[in-house]
Amino acid sequence: MKDKLKIGLLGLGTVGSGVPTILKEHQEKIAQVTGMEIVIAKALVRDEDEKKRQAEKFDIQLTTDIDEIINDDEIKIIVELIGKVEPARTFITKALENGKHIVTANKDLLAQHGSELVALAQKNHCDLYYEASVAGGIPILRTIANSLAADNIQKVLGIVNGTTNYMLTQMVTAKKSYEQALKEAQELGFAESNPTNDVDGIDAAYKMVILSQFAFGMNISLDQVDTHGIRGLSLDDVEMAAHLGYEVKLIGSSEYNNGSIAVEVGPMLVAKTHPIASVRNEFNAVFLESSGVGESMYYGPGAGAKPTATSVVSDLITIAKNIRLGTTGHMFNSYSHDTEITEDKNINGKYYFSIEVPDKHGQILRLTQIMTEADVSFEQLVQQKSDGTRARIVAITHTITKEQMKRVASEIKKADGFKLLTIFKVLEDK
Amino acid sequence: MKDKLKIGLLGLGTVGSGVPTILKEHQEKIAQVTGMEIVIAKALVRDEDEKKRQAEKFDIQLTTDIDEIINDDEIKIIVELIGKVEPARTFITKALENGKHIVTANKDLLAQHGSELVALAQKNHCDLYYEASVAGGIPILRTIANSLAADNIQKVLGIVNGTTNYMLTQMVTAKKSYEQALKEAQELGFAESNPTNDVDGIDAAYKMVILSQFAFGMNISLDQVDTHGIRGLSLDDVEMAAHLGYEVKLIGSSEYNNGSIAVEVGPMLVAKTHPIASVRNEFNAVFLESSGVGESMYYGPGAGAKPTATSVVSDLITIAKNIRLGTTGHMFNSYSHDTEITEDKNINGKYYFSIEVPDKHGQILRLTQIMTEADVSFEQLVQQKSDGTRARIVAITHTITKEQMKRVASEIKKADGFKLLTIFKVLEDK
Repeated sequence: MKDKLKIGLLGLGTVGSGVPTILKEHQEKIAQVTGMEIVIAKALVRDEDEKKRQAEKFDIQLTTDIDEIINDDEIKIIVELIGKVEPARTFITKALENGKHIVTANKDLLAQHGSELVALAQKNHCDLYYEASVAGGIPILRTIANSLAADNIQKVLGIVNGTTNYMLTQMVTAKKSYEQALKEAQELGFAESNPTNDVDGIDAAYKMVILSQFAFGMNISLDQVDTHGIRGLSLDDVEMAAHLGYEVKLIGSSEYNNGSIAVEVGPMLVAKTHPIASVRNEFNAVFLESSGVGESMYYGPGAGAKPTATSVVSDLITIAKNIRLGTTGHMFNSYSHDTEITEDKNINGKYYFSIEVPDKHGQILRLTQIMTEADVSFEQLVQQKSDGTRARIVAITHTITKEQMKRVASEIKKADGFKLLTIFKVLEDK
Repeated sequence: MKDKLKIGLLGLGTVGSGVPTILKEHQEKIAQVTGMEIVIAKALVRDEDEKKRQAEKFDIQLTTDIDEIINDDEIKIIVELIGKVEPARTFITKALENGKHIVTANKDLLAQHGSELVALAQKNHCDLYYEASVAGGIPILRTIANSLAADNIQKVLGIVNGTTNYMLTQMVTAKKSYEQALKEAQELGFAESNPTNDVDGIDAAYKMVILSQFAFGMNISLDQVDTHGIRGLSLDDVEMAAHLGYEVKLIGSSEYNNGSIAVEVGPMLVAKTHPIASVRNEFNAVFLESSGVGESMYYGPGAGAKPTATSVVSDLITIAKNIRLGTTGHMFNSYSHDTEITEDKNINGKYYFSIEVPDKHGQILRLTQIMTEADVSFEQLVQQKSDGTRARIVAITHTITKEQMKRVASEIKKADGFKLLTIFKVLEDK
């Protein structure tokens, strides 16, 4: 008989019930690598009756009272899968104060209160792992913390929101409109009925905050991420991008530049030959540029009950090993660095501008004048067919600073008859 | 002042001198995560004069006598980068017996004598890490051992030889012949003057032996890998594959089937939509199918001094942490399972046959008869233009067993006037 390691589970929803499933399916292998049998002893639910069948199936005791789990001395680890900030933050805080190790998939919480919880875990010599909080089934945090500890990361590009990547893939490959693609994502259960967090890039921004902590050791706040979503993205831009050799992707990027980082989330034009351009549908991928390894990419499912539960269980195994070796209480990510945000004048990039103009002569000249005054030149310029009164000009610039981009944008907005439709960053394949 | 952790380095070639470079470049970060300063104290070289400049640059003491390193009590870890089986095997054996921890990138050695060395490391409570032995800069072994411990892997597909992937990319994209592509790879330093290990698939087979240990816990020998190379691959097949919607890739595959595994290396037709098809040039990738995560892929450089040295240093960091925590002596891969090889009759796949036939009526009928007798049917069939005396027929079968494939192959070889040119396995995107 192996020793039993008892777990308290907060939340028995889709991912929550995946955890006992994975533990049961891989019982033998887990016992072999940890020397212990990991069992879910109790689960916190809102309604005991509703979850009765699952509880019986996995022999889990249900409770609606968090204290019954937090004050149970036999429970060593708590897995939090209820999501959002409250009451998760209060529960985890209490649990850490009671010396429980924590596994969570809660990106909202980690992105906003990560440092506070990490410090509390340290103080109480507890483990706090959250691999599943970024890119579900992809072990990207552990890879950065362990395998790239000997490397200097320069850039992290992530497709870290499966819902929007699914929508964009449908828009690109099946020429569906934004509205159609969203409706379909909702029908398939990828998008919630209120899709704000996904389509406005907030979910991706949470993940970029966590990735930036691991890649650069910097603690940034959500408002330091320049966040744009895909809400209302026009099929025109998607088709124009394809025509110019790019795919539109919602990219989270975190880039190191001389002691500071720039973190952005937004629709970007990705060259079709770039490895991240071929990531389709609900899949996620994180692409890294580092001085040692060079280019690497980690690809897999970004969400889903089984991948997320698998990731949670891999954290449980890590803690189980630490308990057995007496090495708990070390930080998941021990790399830290002063936090500095790059100024716009030091952020470089190529940008795609889409502008609606009056359908008469001289518009390209006017645009060129605006650009020239900001010392910006074009790499590609396309004037599209018009409806007789309005036309559309699309321009991709050479590499400029973000400050220049903003200056041009502001001048275009002021220009009589010009309407700035979109600005996307452009990512080339090296 | 941080404690110093002294390392002995065997080999100061391209990768060897990458190690002190990486250690120096990331000194601060490494000290932060390990609490120690890792320094190369001594290096074993064949000719001290030849390496004098590097030794001075990094303040390394040179020696031509292995005992000066192995018997140095101050040296805790030995990094072996001389490659091939002997004398590396003897050196590592002696070092383990003297209680030294080992980091090596030696795939030949690990694939052939891995179990013996792992057992010896266990006996002497030493760490033995070899992340760099498979897919250079991609931390695939650590990912399987740590992050996928809670998962059941069903299939591993790897592009694990950069030289042949470079050659195939050149053949596909630039229509170069096998000979031209090989010459170019040699000029670029990707292929050695004797390219046998690369082009005959032996290097990839070594890596599949190691990957199979990690993914399935099984210890297979090199002769249990059904190994085919790309030597003499014809541009006709590469072009025909493209025409049918596939890319020809040298794929190592290890597939689990009901308690046993089938391990193969060979040129395969990979559907263009499969994530592994877009891996170009010298890049490597390992694609996994598992019951928990589903599909995942790890992509990066397969070789090169910096990526490999970065991987070696990440192993050094792992051991440094273990030394500090007093947790050395645990196996890199602790998953083990009885080794069983799948019989041909239980291996399923679609196969591409390319056959030269006399240019006269009735050839397709003859081929169909052979196939029908083995209960094999076609999914695609193409008869190519002939030179007047000989024609070529290309067929892709429906899913059949490897036993059926071999039966058909043997009948085609016996058939009067038929010449079997190639048989490739076909990988579809799910």
